[in-house]
Amino acid sequence: MKPHGIKDPYSYPTFLINEQICGQNIHHMAEKARANKLIFRPHFKTHQSVEVGEWFRRAGVTAITVSSVSMAQQFAAAGWQDITIAFPLNLREIDAINQLAETVSLNVLFDMPEQADGLAVKIKYPAGFFIKIDVGHHRAGVLPTDFETIDTILSAAGSDLLQFRGFLTHAGQTYSAKSREEILNIHRKTSAILFSLKQNYIQKFPGIITSTGDTPSCSLAEYFTGIDEIRPGNFVYYDLMQLRLGSCRFEQIAAAVVCPVVSVYPARNEALIYGGAVHLSKESIINADGSKNFGLIVPFIDGKWQKPEGDDSLVSLSQEHGIFKTDSHWARSLKPGDLVAVIPVHSCLAANLFRIA
Amino acid sequence: MKPHGIKDPYSYPTFLINEQICGQNIHHMAEKARANKLIFRPHFKTHQSVEVGEWFRRAGVTAITVSSVSMAQQFAAAGWQDITIAFPLNLREIDAINQLAETVSLNVLFDMPEQADGLAVKIKYPAGFFIKIDVGHHRAGVLPTDFETIDTILSAAGSDLLQFRGFLTHAGQTYSAKSREEILNIHRKTSAILFSLKQNYIQKFPGIITSTGDTPSCSLAEYFTGIDEIRPGNFVYYDLMQLRLGSCRFEQIAAAVVCPVVSVYPARNEALIYGGAVHLSKESIINADGSKNFGLIVPFIDGKWQKPEGDDSLVSLSQEHGIFKTDSHWARSLKPGDLVAVIPVHSCLAANLFRIA
Repeated sequence: MKPHGIKDPYSYPTFLINEQICGQNIHHMAEKARANKLIFRPHFKTHQSVEVGEWFRRAGVTAITVSSVSMAQQFAAAGWQDITIAFPLNLREIDAINQLAETVSLNVLFDMPEQADGLAVKIKYPAGFFIKIDVGHHRAGVLPTDFETIDTILSAAGSDLLQFRGFLTHAGQTYSAKSREEILNIHRKTSAILFSLKQNYIQKFPGIITSTGDTPSCSLAEYFTGIDEIRPGNFVYYDLMQLRLGSCRFEQIAAAVVCPVVSVYPARNEALIYGGAVHLSKESIINADGSKNFGLIVPFIDGKWQKPEGDDSLVSLSQEHGIFKTDSHWARSLKPGDLVAVIPVHSCLAANLFRIA
Repeated sequence: MKPHGIKDPYSYPTFLINEQICGQNIHHMAEKARANKLIFRPHFKTHQSVEVGEWFRRAGVTAITVSSVSMAQQFAAAGWQDITIAFPLNLREIDAINQLAETVSLNVLFDMPEQADGLAVKIKYPAGFFIKIDVGHHRAGVLPTDFETIDTILSAAGSDLLQFRGFLTHAGQTYSAKSREEILNIHRKTSAILFSLKQNYIQKFPGIITSTGDTPSCSLAEYFTGIDEIRPGNFVYYDLMQLRLGSCRFEQIAAAVVCPVVSVYPARNEALIYGGAVHLSKESIINADGSKNFGLIVPFIDGKWQKPEGDDSLVSLSQEHGIFKTDSHWARSLKPGDLVAVIPVHSCLAANLFRIA
C-alpha cells in the first residue's frame, strides 16, 4: 500500500515494468506463433492489466486467455472480443458466463461431465468449450487415455449453443524440469498426446484444434508439430524462475520491484529492505544447497534495474520485511535509504499483489 | 477478484471472519494483558481492517501497532491516536512520518544510528522511538550485547522532539519452535534480555519500557516478568500455523476462505477448488513426511466452517487453482459446485490478499 504525502516515487515498494522489453517479448512470441502458423492467444493472468493488454493489441493480438470469470469480465469491458477462460468451469459462475457469452466470443473448459451438463442446461448464448487434458501435470484435466470421460463430456454438452473447440492442456510440469532437454521432451510428448486426440475426434468434430501454453515450452521450442494454438502468459515479464529454467536471458526480464534499503547488518552479511511477502509473494526457488531464494537483488540506477552483481538473494520474507544476503562487493556497500531492485521469483504473483491500491 | 452479475455470495473465493470468535480472542488477550499489568498494543497488520479495529476498541484498546507508514495513515484516519510503526525507520518516508507525528502519538523503531540521525535532523513534531533488539530471530534489530550501537543510536537521536521509549523485539523464532516448551523458553530468554537492557538504561531514561509480541509466546505464556508491553497480531484470527505450533485450539481460529469445488479426481484421490495463491498466499507448513501443506479443507455448512473430517490438505497451489487430497470419507463425497472452507496457513497474508477488491 502506498503512503500518501511523499513525493519520492520510490519511498515504498514499487512494481516497475520495462515497456520496451515487454514489447520485445510480445513481438518475439507473436513472430514465433506466426512462423509456426499457430493461433496466438496469450494468457493475461500474468499482468491483469488493461494497459499491458493494449501492447498486445498493437502486436496484432485479438484472442486472449484468462484464468477467472472476473478477469474475463475485466478484459471484455476493455474491448476484448475473443476470450478463453482456461480454468475448469465453476458451476457457481454460470450466470456471469451467460452474460459474457452474450457479448463476446467465449470459450470455457470442461474436465468433468457435470460441468458440461450444468452449462448445457443453462446456456442462453453460443459458446465454445475445450476439454482439458492432463498431460502429466496432475493439476486438472482428463487423462488422455480416458475416452469414456471424454465421450461422456461430449454427450453431456448436448446443446446447439455449445460448440466443441478441441483439446487444451497446460503442461505445468515443465516448471519442475531440470534441463532444457527435459522441457523440450515434455513439449514433444504433450504435442503428440494432443495431436493423437485431435485425430481421434476430428472426423466427428471438424475444425477442432489443440491448444497448449506453458511459457517454458513456448519459449524454448522451435517446432510445434501437432499444436494449433499457444497460450503462454508469463513470458511477457519473465522472472527468476524462468531464468533458472533457461526459458529466458536476464535481459528479457521485464518486471522488477524497486525497494528501499532500510537497515544493513554487516556482522551477518545481510540487509533489510522494505519489501516482503505482500509485495513479492512467498513463491521461492530452491538453491543448489537446499536453501530458499525469494528474489534476486540488483542495482537500480537512473530509473533502470541492472545486471546482478553477485548472488545477492532474498533469504527470507515476512509480511513487509525482506532479508537478503550481501554477497557482492556492491551489496556490502549499500546504506539505509539506498534503492535496490528485486527480480521476483514469480512475476504473475508479484504483479497481482500490486493491484492492491 | 469478485465477478459481477452473480447473486450467490460464495461463487468465488470468499474470506470469512467469525466475529464472535474474534471477539473472544481479543477479550482473552486483553484480559491476559490486564492480569499481567501489561500495555496491550495489538498489531493491526493481521487484519488491516478498520472494522475489525473497532472490535478492539470495544475491548478497551487505545494503542496499536502497525508494520508500515501507510497502515499508520490508514488507522490514524480511522481515529487511532497512539500508533507504533514496528518496522525499522525507512529514511525515505520521513515526510509522511512528520505528517503523522503532527496528528497522533507516534512511535518509530531504530536499529541503526543512520535512522536516528536521519529523523533527528528532519523531525518537526514530538515522536517516540524504540530501539529494536534482535533476540535471536536475526531479521532486524541490534544485538543485545552491542552497547556501542545502542549508545550511538541514543546519541544520534539527539533532538528534543525525539523521546526514547525503550527496547522492542519480535521473537519470531518461536514460529520455528518444535514444542510448547521451546516457545516458552524463547519467551523467558527474550524477557530476560529486554529486562536486562532496561535495567541498564532506566536511570538515564526514566520511564522506558520493554515491548515484545509474537503470537505464540503471548498465547502460551502465563508469566511476563520483565515485559511491559505486548504487541501480538495474528491471535485475532489464528490459523493453521498457530494450530500446528499449539498456540491455539481449532475452535479459536476465526478466519477461513470459502471456496467452490470445481472438479474431483477420484482416480488420484484429489480435488480442485477455485482458490489459489492469489487468495491464500503460497505460505506453507511442512508435514511430517516432508510434503507441503497450503491449507486445510473443512466442511462449510449453514454459513459456518466445521471441524476437519480428516487430513484433507491442500497439496499444491497455483495462481487460481488449489489441489487438495481427499483423505476423509466426507472429502471423497464432494461434487463439483459444493462449497468447502479452507483454514489458511497464514491468516495475515490471506487477509491481505482479500484487500484486492
